[in-house]
Amino acid sequence: MYKQQESLDSIPDMNETKVLRIDLASTTPVFRQIADGLRALLVHGAFNVGDRLPTVRQVAVDLAVHHNTVAQAYRLLAEEGWLELRRHNGARVIERPQPRASAASQQSFVQRLRELAARGAADGLDAKSIARHLDDLAEMLNK
Amino acid sequence: MYKQQESLDSIPDMNETKVLRIDLASTTPVFRQIADGLRALLVHGAFNVGDRLPTVRQVAVDLAVHHNTVAQAYRLLAEEGWLELRRHNGARVIERPQPRASAASQQSFVQRLRELAARGAADGLDAKSIARHLDDLAEMLNK
Repeated sequence: MYKQQESLDSIPDMNETKVLRIDLASTTPVFRQIADGLRALLVHGAFNVGDRLPTVRQVAVDLAVHHNTVAQAYRLLAEEGWLELRRHNGARVIERPQPRASAASQQSFVQRLRELAARGAADGLDAKSIARHLDDLAEMLNK
Repeated sequence: MYKQQESLDSIPDMNETKVLRIDLASTTPVFRQIADGLRALLVHGAFNVGDRLPTVRQVAVDLAVHHNTVAQAYRLLAEEGWLELRRHNGARVIERPQPRASAASQQSFVQRLRELAARGAADGLDAKSIARHLDDLAEMLNK
């Protein structure tokens, strides 16, 4: 179900697949990459309420990472209200009430977005291509 | 120079100020928030090559965080080629060759952008307002 890849050779279409991609060369901790990827799948409705996620151990084997790393990601998503953790390292998707966005979450989003753009620029992306990626996603969201 | 705030009460204009904002309530580790904020300042040219950054200890006092947390952020930026670390926890901005963006960094950017959008949605932002933030930044970048 999940795979690790160090070179990203295709842009993930998160509406269609249930693939987690982690990048061992990234400075972002792997548990956070797993949580970010799973959260995106959950937001896009890739799982239904009541679905069981693969066990921590299974994901750890698939991604070839330590099971504590996966357990940490599952705990973070449980704290955020996405998952109910089960015995034997299982997890079930639960109903999560949609919070109302506060002004603080709007501003925090804008700040993180600017920081991500700066990180892209630091990685060598020029302003035009960053803007194009932003436009592409905005267009997708406006549909 | 730097301040900590738990509620973000103004959108930072990173071209004009040298303010670091950290959010203790965030699940993003503080050292990473400091590094992300400083990297954004560096990308936007808020510092010149040769500038000394405030010492680790000074930033730690300003933000009321442990100095190891700041030191970790400085080390990360030094590894990325932005800073030269000095004695007594000082740091100097150095010339950083702009890397050429690989296909992998483009795709990694797109993935992180989608994950950030998903995180915004999980925080209660609706698709339209996320799209608006993306458009706003794209427009700024296209200038």
